[in-house]
Amino acid sequence: MDVLAGMDFGGTSVKIGLVLKNGTLLSHGLIAIDPCADFESIMTAVARSLDSFLNAMPPGGKLVGIGIGTPGFTDEESGVLLEGCRNIPSLQGNSVRRYIADRFGVPTVTDNDATCAASGELLFGAGRKYSNFVLLTIGTGIGGGLVLDGKVFRGARGYAAEIGHMCIDPNGPWCICGSRGCLEQFASGTAIQAAYNQKAAKRGLEAAPSAESVADRARQGDVLAVITMREAATRIAQAFGTILNLLDLQACIVGGGVSRAGDILLGPIRAELPDYCWPLVSRSVDICAAGLSNNAGVVGAAAHMMSRLST
Amino acid sequence: MDVLAGMDFGGTSVKIGLVLKNGTLLSHGLIAIDPCADFESIMTAVARSLDSFLNAMPPGGKLVGIGIGTPGFTDEESGVLLEGCRNIPSLQGNSVRRYIADRFGVPTVTDNDATCAASGELLFGAGRKYSNFVLLTIGTGIGGGLVLDGKVFRGARGYAAEIGHMCIDPNGPWCICGSRGCLEQFASGTAIQAAYNQKAAKRGLEAAPSAESVADRARQGDVLAVITMREAATRIAQAFGTILNLLDLQACIVGGGVSRAGDILLGPIRAELPDYCWPLVSRSVDICAAGLSNNAGVVGAAAHMMSRLST
Repeated sequence: MDVLAGMDFGGTSVKIGLVLKNGTLLSHGLIAIDPCADFESIMTAVARSLDSFLNAMPPGGKLVGIGIGTPGFTDEESGVLLEGCRNIPSLQGNSVRRYIADRFGVPTVTDNDATCAASGELLFGAGRKYSNFVLLTIGTGIGGGLVLDGKVFRGARGYAAEIGHMCIDPNGPWCICGSRGCLEQFASGTAIQAAYNQKAAKRGLEAAPSAESVADRARQGDVLAVITMREAATRIAQAFGTILNLLDLQACIVGGGVSRAGDILLGPIRAELPDYCWPLVSRSVDICAAGLSNNAGVVGAAAHMMSRLST
Repeated sequence: MDVLAGMDFGGTSVKIGLVLKNGTLLSHGLIAIDPCADFESIMTAVARSLDSFLNAMPPGGKLVGIGIGTPGFTDEESGVLLEGCRNIPSLQGNSVRRYIADRFGVPTVTDNDATCAASGELLFGAGRKYSNFVLLTIGTGIGGGLVLDGKVFRGARGYAAEIGHMCIDPNGPWCICGSRGCLEQFASGTAIQAAYNQKAAKRGLEAAPSAESVADRARQGDVLAVITMREAATRIAQAFGTILNLLDLQACIVGGGVSRAGDILLGPIRAELPDYCWPLVSRSVDICAAGLSNNAGVVGAAAHMMSRLST
């Protein structure tokens, strides 16, 4: 029984799991990490955790590959994390892939977490129906993945699909990426929570502790939360319109915690899309929620390794 | 000696030429058309013109395929022009490809003119050096073509690369495509000429008869023309930044009549690009002029057919 390991590096924890080739999650868990610890300490803890999952694997299970999602940009040749990983500084300049491949002796791939998530959606999620789609993952920031002609598209050097940093408003505020008025500044979890809490404060209402809770409040009929989600939806519709005019896709898939707002977020995106797109292009495009929710990072990373093994 | 025919449908004329497989233009010319004439009249004239080119072909020449570029969106299956061809209304709803293929009995392809131009740049122009690039053609409007992983990318239904209709400013004026503040409204030949002439009128200066003449005046040191080109460059830099963040390309190529402004246009695009793009993504991207200029449409259409024949 071939088994793949998936790992998903977040700002304060690493999720780890074992996945079968049909996408079934065999076991999973997470370990907390100190994001300011040195590379060796973090990786030792991660490797030990994977050891314990492997020791508990059912008889006949055989580890055939490891997929790892991290924030930022990875050099494909060396696996070294080049940039865009400020939350876990010691990863930058190091190769998670080399460390794990040396330690476990199986094919290992590292890639951007949202690119891994797109692999997961393509193999096991909402993307199974499509050969051309974009995945937008709304978390603390905004990640993106592109599938073109049935394959995850990585660009000339593997840096593609930085959808969170599309310039949505050239007069908007500057962003850490170097651009102005990026999508992330209007529609990330951070932005949604801040927008809601600003509105709430002015009205003497209780602040929301997270973007997910804004989504939940919207579903429960909180008008301010519905307005906040709609404002984010307008910006997402603009980004999707531009992407569709550029790439003529079949679907735009929305994932990440905020996507649990469901049609309260997706409805206005669908309604506003024609304002940002050729009619012929927007017609018959599906705007839908991601199919993988919990453990999407782990399954996506394993799926990303699977697609490497099968080519 | 294998010969391909290329045709390029413009608003008031059709350019026709014969092209060898190495890109050499054997013969070429144009016929004026009445854009309001019926389909049959236009196509009869175009076919007769191609007849005369074929009759004058050197001994041993053999027509092996015909490539045709038109404005708008073509249905790949039927070759029927679906939308986006308001300049020659009678083309819409008809199949130029079927007419020409039936008349000449050789493999024939029709596609968007800018998509054809991208094929031309890839095979014979500035795109030869790259496997991932975008081509922006600045004419009356703005056309676009994408080459990804060494092939012209057409999207799920062949409508990709509508770069002229990327939303650059969500508060900009509405465009015929359904979006607001499209790139075309800021940086097309029409927009550049109008912007220059507005500035000139206020100062009692002579109007420019075309966008190309604004480009020529800029090269001759006309400060107003330089400013106008720079304003267009800012918008193009924004569009390129968004495209690069999305697709991680090696080059952005600028074609069309206005591109003869050369570094007066390309210089500010290069200078402003980092304001709209991840540093890692914009680094080492080439911003350059198209390699094919005169007859780019004819050679591009023939090249588009060639790439079909070779796959």
